[in-house]
Amino acid sequence: MQTDEQLIRRTFELADKGRGFTSPNPVVGTVIVKNGEIIAEGWHKKFGCDHAERMALKKAGDAAEGATLYVNLEPCDFEGKTPPCTEAIIEAGISKVVASMEDPNPKVSGEGLKILQKAGIEVVSGVLEEEAQKLNRGFVSLMQKGRPWITLKMALTTDGFIGDATGKSQWITSDRSLKFVRRERKKHDGVMVGLGTVLKDDPSLLPDYRDGYIPYRIVMDESLMIPYKAKLVNGDYVDRTIIVTGEAGKEKRWNEFQKRHASIVKVDREKMGWIDLEDAFQTLGEEGLSSVYCEGGGRLAASLVDAGLVDELQIFIAPKILGEGIKSFDGFKKSLDQAIQLQWDEVKQFGPDVLLKGRLV
Amino acid sequence: MQTDEQLIRRTFELADKGRGFTSPNPVVGTVIVKNGEIIAEGWHKKFGCDHAERMALKKAGDAAEGATLYVNLEPCDFEGKTPPCTEAIIEAGISKVVASMEDPNPKVSGEGLKILQKAGIEVVSGVLEEEAQKLNRGFVSLMQKGRPWITLKMALTTDGFIGDATGKSQWITSDRSLKFVRRERKKHDGVMVGLGTVLKDDPSLLPDYRDGYIPYRIVMDESLMIPYKAKLVNGDYVDRTIIVTGEAGKEKRWNEFQKRHASIVKVDREKMGWIDLEDAFQTLGEEGLSSVYCEGGGRLAASLVDAGLVDELQIFIAPKILGEGIKSFDGFKKSLDQAIQLQWDEVKQFGPDVLLKGRLV
Repeated sequence: MQTDEQLIRRTFELADKGRGFTSPNPVVGTVIVKNGEIIAEGWHKKFGCDHAERMALKKAGDAAEGATLYVNLEPCDFEGKTPPCTEAIIEAGISKVVASMEDPNPKVSGEGLKILQKAGIEVVSGVLEEEAQKLNRGFVSLMQKGRPWITLKMALTTDGFIGDATGKSQWITSDRSLKFVRRERKKHDGVMVGLGTVLKDDPSLLPDYRDGYIPYRIVMDESLMIPYKAKLVNGDYVDRTIIVTGEAGKEKRWNEFQKRHASIVKVDREKMGWIDLEDAFQTLGEEGLSSVYCEGGGRLAASLVDAGLVDELQIFIAPKILGEGIKSFDGFKKSLDQAIQLQWDEVKQFGPDVLLKGRLV
Repeated sequence: MQTDEQLIRRTFELADKGRGFTSPNPVVGTVIVKNGEIIAEGWHKKFGCDHAERMALKKAGDAAEGATLYVNLEPCDFEGKTPPCTEAIIEAGISKVVASMEDPNPKVSGEGLKILQKAGIEVVSGVLEEEAQKLNRGFVSLMQKGRPWITLKMALTTDGFIGDATGKSQWITSDRSLKFVRRERKKHDGVMVGLGTVLKDDPSLLPDYRDGYIPYRIVMDESLMIPYKAKLVNGDYVDRTIIVTGEAGKEKRWNEFQKRHASIVKVDREKMGWIDLEDAFQTLGEEGLSSVYCEGGGRLAASLVDAGLVDELQIFIAPKILGEGIKSFDGFKKSLDQAIQLQWDEVKQFGPDVLLKGRLV
């Protein structure tokens, strides 16, 4: 007989199967247990499809009566693309619901659990809540801040450069770190670079494996200057490209990129003419992106940390010294007293490199 | 009954008691064991004093006959400040000698052990040799390269700066890291900075605790420009200051510093007028310094890594971003292909900072 924690962990595993396909919905997994046995499992496969609870209940059929339902997120109680899950749970005769966390969606936030309790169902909430929050941190960010979870990745030399004095940056870090980065891309709804990186490196920003889900490739291009020949606007995945621009004119270029099936998003500009990042991420949130993996360069990195728009930092430090090169954070000059303060949550050797995971404080 | 490894570890502990006082001699500890019991211990307390073996043999007296002697370094077989230890061991009637490593001193290097064997003593060598090498890495460096073991310590922001744009560098890292550094000073025969650091920070370079041993404070001052008011040439410990210069003139300044009991060492200059570092460290080695802890600044750091004159790197990375500041390695501009390559041996969180220990490869 498995413990509540073990069964909730199983819902995490199931939830993760939908990763990349459910946004802006959360990833959700459900396990139905009767007499100590798992009788059905379900997960939210894709935005618009059955919720995890409904999928599991359908599988369980009549056996759901008197069973316990485990789920990593409070069941919804409102009519969306699908009818409310609370209704299905009550109808199936489930006698107990164990959930990890309340739904951060203001339309739900505790209401779903209350409805279940009123219907006479025993409700337990908060099992492995911290992990559940992490599992759906993109969704939580969308619900609470209206913008995606933002991860900033940087690859630096030990003396802090992201490229040598000639502009070369391929590759500062090792194969192992590059592979890690390409795998991380698949864990996010979008991958972002600044136009400078497109002009210099012409990246494709694709994950290693092209089967299944391809994250959006986002370029911050304030004046809509991305070259027609750039990889991001050519090839098989142009429909997975989003150009974020502050430029409303340049109709010919707009039309050309739209003809190629790239998306263009017009956002506000700041006084200096640079994209208003807060507006940009709010807009990406409205487009349904719950997480964005920002890969630099130095100007985008500086803008993000200066605006406080970084939820997680991933800094790779390569065992190399250049003496001179391209600055990693290009856009401000802080005194030591006013330095941007970070906190490291994880520090480890990563092949020949070092990986520091942290956040702004 | 203790194993050979346990008894050799005890010699390491005893050896370490002499740390700071024995240079240019190695640190040595000795344990004499009879019938499974330690009957005497000894260590080399200070350059010119009894060697560890002799101290232990004196304590053991007649009981040494038939006993086993453990020592972290091959006993010497030549007449130096004291008579050869091999002689004392043979005379005392020791029946077995267990040593960690051969003496890297070309005057010994295996000869001491051979003499013991010829005298009918059973000899075992190589127990925990790697650790023994590390224990006396300064001495090994002096014997094999004619120069001290060189450790380069740097305190960097995450974006690679050692000071902000105004020049301020106190303090980039946390109290805990600063304390670590002050403790490290006491583990070295000398602590070194470039003149730039003296002009900017006016450091005292003293360890936390002033009791006992004070390491030499070395300033690389190519043109003998250190100010008369600098802390390094004032106060209680001027006799522990060494000024390394390429300047033979400036007689008035020479006389003034010597009057204050600072040492001045004249070394060669390179074509560019900068101190010939190889000559400088050879000279410090001849002065008896077996280890030097270099604390920057950026110009000294760049010169050291560029000359390959770094045996250990200690890099503290503070959780701070400045955007702009004083470069950590100031003196060259490498392409990515020609970057100075490092290797990390140890990576860990150190309070709020990260400590990377490594070396040049």
